[in-house]
Amino acid sequence: MDLKEFVQQSIGRWRSQRSAHHLAFAHFEEVRSTIDIIALDPQDPGVLEVCGLYQIDPASMESPFKMTWEGESDWDDEEDLSGSCILVPIPDPNYPQKGKLLRDRGYAETIPAIGQYSLNEEGIFTLITEYDRAAAEERIWFATPNLRFRVSQIKTRDGQGVTTASFSSEIRSLSS
Amino acid sequence: MDLKEFVQQSIGRWRSQRSAHHLAFAHFEEVRSTIDIIALDPQDPGVLEVCGLYQIDPASMESPFKMTWEGESDWDDEEDLSGSCILVPIPDPNYPQKGKLLRDRGYAETIPAIGQYSLNEEGIFTLITEYDRAAAEERIWFATPNLRFRVSQIKTRDGQGVTTASFSSEIRSLSS
Repeated sequence: MDLKEFVQQSIGRWRSQRSAHHLAFAHFEEVRSTIDIIALDPQDPGVLEVCGLYQIDPASMESPFKMTWEGESDWDDEEDLSGSCILVPIPDPNYPQKGKLLRDRGYAETIPAIGQYSLNEEGIFTLITEYDRAAAEERIWFATPNLRFRVSQIKTRDGQGVTTASFSSEIRSLSS
Repeated sequence: MDLKEFVQQSIGRWRSQRSAHHLAFAHFEEVRSTIDIIALDPQDPGVLEVCGLYQIDPASMESPFKMTWEGESDWDDEEDLSGSCILVPIPDPNYPQKGKLLRDRGYAETIPAIGQYSLNEEGIFTLITEYDRAAAEERIWFATPNLRFRVSQIKTRDGQGVTTASFSSEIRSLSS
């Protein structure tokens, strides 16, 4: 599976169950959400803006897309669990299974972020994103074409401590 | 990381948080447990019995171990979440990163089971076990030397439907 196929298979509406483990105090958090992933045209103004933000030549991108999510947590009713971001993969010209992933804002902090991705032989997509105070590592793979798993961990910036680990199972919603 | 190192790093007492996602009805289950993994001597009677059960030459094994777990679920107070099993890895002589994993009983059904394992370049251990009516696939890896993640899925035997997905974060307990 290459990046283009991975993004292609991700397009659609997903019903997500996410469990977060707050490790220090062994707390569980449960989130149910709906995630929409849509393909974007490389000429989409938002996509071009992201390329401009990082001064990347738009010709080097592959399969840009947009994620939108809306969820509810059992933990904090006030927390805003809705949002969206534009993601622009920039494959490494020398290593086709690796590259950068540009985002107009990150998951862990609401600022723009560049992640490093790689896609292994088993179809596991790994994304590492470093922020000012933290680093996020995500692994995403398909159990079946209609079931996607995602494991995330948030580390302190020095890479020593993992503060939160979470797991999402995402089922393709056939009614959209 | 080879199998021997993987088992070595797994030895110890672990405090586990496990979230199970019952996919058909989007139900969450939370389990807290303590897991003890101890190395066994290749001459241990239980280990030799497992080899005998599958008619495997004991000389072909590597790093046998025993897992014991004791947990509590938020879902079903009556469910017995304690148990133990002996695991005996049999590396493939031609492909050192793959092999069979013999068990005196399986996770999903309480009968003996042979799993197929592989360990990839990123240190992800994948185990596939087929039972009469179901198949289990697990991926286990270390986020840090003291934090282990485990993602499991139970599929119907025909491989089509995934009924349950679960995620464990296991923190090494320094007081044992």
